[in-house]
Amino acid sequence: MFDGDPALNGKYTSPLLLIGGGADALSVRYATSFEAPDPFLCLLKGKERHLLVSMLEFGRAQRLQGNITCHTPDSLSLSTADRRHLGKQAVALIRHLGVKRVYVSPQCPVGVVRELESEGLKVLVSPEPVFSSRMLKREDEIRSMRESQRAAVAAMKRAVEVIHRAGVDKKGRLLNGSGGVLTSEEVRLEIEKVLLERQCAADDIIVAGGDQGVDPHERGYGPLRVGETIVLDIFPYSKKTGYWGDMTRTVIKGQPTREQLHLFQTVLSAQREAIRRVKPGVTGKEIHQGVVAAFKKAGYQTGLVDGIPQGFIHSTGHGVGLEIHEGPSIGPSGGPLKAGHVITIEPGLYYLGVGGVRIEDTLVVTETGSSLLGRCRKVFQV
Amino acid sequence: MFDGDPALNGKYTSPLLLIGGGADALSVRYATSFEAPDPFLCLLKGKERHLLVSMLEFGRAQRLQGNITCHTPDSLSLSTADRRHLGKQAVALIRHLGVKRVYVSPQCPVGVVRELESEGLKVLVSPEPVFSSRMLKREDEIRSMRESQRAAVAAMKRAVEVIHRAGVDKKGRLLNGSGGVLTSEEVRLEIEKVLLERQCAADDIIVAGGDQGVDPHERGYGPLRVGETIVLDIFPYSKKTGYWGDMTRTVIKGQPTREQLHLFQTVLSAQREAIRRVKPGVTGKEIHQGVVAAFKKAGYQTGLVDGIPQGFIHSTGHGVGLEIHEGPSIGPSGGPLKAGHVITIEPGLYYLGVGGVRIEDTLVVTETGSSLLGRCRKVFQV
Repeated sequence: MFDGDPALNGKYTSPLLLIGGGADALSVRYATSFEAPDPFLCLLKGKERHLLVSMLEFGRAQRLQGNITCHTPDSLSLSTADRRHLGKQAVALIRHLGVKRVYVSPQCPVGVVRELESEGLKVLVSPEPVFSSRMLKREDEIRSMRESQRAAVAAMKRAVEVIHRAGVDKKGRLLNGSGGVLTSEEVRLEIEKVLLERQCAADDIIVAGGDQGVDPHERGYGPLRVGETIVLDIFPYSKKTGYWGDMTRTVIKGQPTREQLHLFQTVLSAQREAIRRVKPGVTGKEIHQGVVAAFKKAGYQTGLVDGIPQGFIHSTGHGVGLEIHEGPSIGPSGGPLKAGHVITIEPGLYYLGVGGVRIEDTLVVTETGSSLLGRCRKVFQV
Repeated sequence: MFDGDPALNGKYTSPLLLIGGGADALSVRYATSFEAPDPFLCLLKGKERHLLVSMLEFGRAQRLQGNITCHTPDSLSLSTADRRHLGKQAVALIRHLGVKRVYVSPQCPVGVVRELESEGLKVLVSPEPVFSSRMLKREDEIRSMRESQRAAVAAMKRAVEVIHRAGVDKKGRLLNGSGGVLTSEEVRLEIEKVLLERQCAADDIIVAGGDQGVDPHERGYGPLRVGETIVLDIFPYSKKTGYWGDMTRTVIKGQPTREQLHLFQTVLSAQREAIRRVKPGVTGKEIHQGVVAAFKKAGYQTGLVDGIPQGFIHSTGHGVGLEIHEGPSIGPSGGPLKAGHVITIEPGLYYLGVGGVRIEDTLVVTETGSSLLGRCRKVFQV
């Protein structure tokens, strides 16, 4: 749990109002460890933390550790109509605490802001991110992320094993153990089962063969085939801690073409080089530009071909934590890395007719370089 | 997919800007069928629909059906710095389309609104909900919800079976098939496996025994015990369609006390009566008040006891659709029902030392009454 005072860094000269369970769910979880399925209010005022929650959440909220005061619509004497409106709730809480000026996050719903302003309260929008300390992971956060990444590794091994064991029919389609056609959906189900057993969940796991893998966010569907690249991108979050892991491997069943092999080796070598560059002080931009240059040198071009983006069409990586995509960026505008950042390094190349190749690891930036959150072999042909 | 023109109902006299993959994810999914893991922009202008998506999403977006124009940061010539800011992206898209005044949803991030205003654009906040038609479900939406509800029923049957088959040790703890103690976590895993096989997911399934079940949002943990009420609340969403199902049953292993039995029978009879009242024109408020009156008549009081909310401490129900909680409300401020609404009816009573009982079905309001989305027996003692 976050135990700093957000006012301490001089950023917030007035109390900060956040929408838990909604726009600022993860900031509130970070600041209070509390979460709920429906929106609720959190107000940080110096060392005080206030929650305004429904009767339904009151029991859980009261049991929270730390200097947290819990309010309910009843304790603030909200009318039946007002208690259904987050804006009216916010006005009541702010008035109750004698506050005249609040910060909100840039994500705060404009409806809430307009309500506060219509009551004569001054609303300031905080700079992004709300808690910059969230990018610098504590030991317990890194432990949680290692656990999620271990689940990703276990699921990856299972997926690779399923593809390794698959048979092949006359049409080149992979076959499962029961003699049926092995599909992306079936491999995804195997992955999800492994994650579930480790109390992790993942909604958008990618198992994308051939040209499907050229679209980096296509989850993949239908029969998997021999001689096609298969992108396996597994990003689970822990249902216990909320922290994510993130890992991608690309495999092929059968003999790759020279073109496919060259694609894989180019991405693998760019990924290794990028990981070697990670250390405090180096910028995300430099690391990204290194990958861009390596791909260019190897003769790979990026741009629209037949209206489809092809080549190296995304950033080299991103921060990971309570969000799957958070700061810092390892891309064209990425700033300097610091020890305690947790980032992915995931270069990829995508060409229709050849396939997609992406290789991704998640690592924590250390004082001297970086340390992988979880290890898993990078074998192309399985 | 939504195929109406949002301007047609006279609500939007200017184009409507929505944040897909973020604050307005479900509205955008409803209006365009498109979704993405990171925020993107959607602008509805008369019959035109515009999406501004990253290169990563461009391929999928271009394949969408309907009158949808896809833009990218490149096609709008956004600078590297600006393309990382949703507000700057919005300004570029709005300027490109020659728009001077836009509606946003009440959920729109204030950071985006401030950016638009700083560029001299007029921003109007739309009334809630953005698309009131979302509450009136089409046939295909109801089919999708039936499918999710069928998954909930299958998972419920499995959970009840696991508890039914459980042994009991000397300390009154339930035992699983391997002779270990049967926990809430284990029953939840069984539920999740059934849902997964039906391409559904659910993050907050409740398996809460005894006093844990008195807190309606406590997910439940640790050993289950004989003679304790066990609340099973299963609300899965389909990974294919995004639509939710929602069902709760309460069971007990062994002989209930007279107090527990009376609690169960009171909730069951209130639920049946509430379902009988559902038809077009009846208000959510009337249905809720009927339940409140029935509980009062049966001698059950509601309020804080020892600082803990006890009794009937939530609404009678809520709408279900692309959100697990959406309109209409079946509570103190619920308005008139219409044919095509999909709602839950889920009265409950909660007392420390006795346990929690909640019984919930999801139903579609028809011209003459209602129709259950999925059927599952309501047996207390298993």
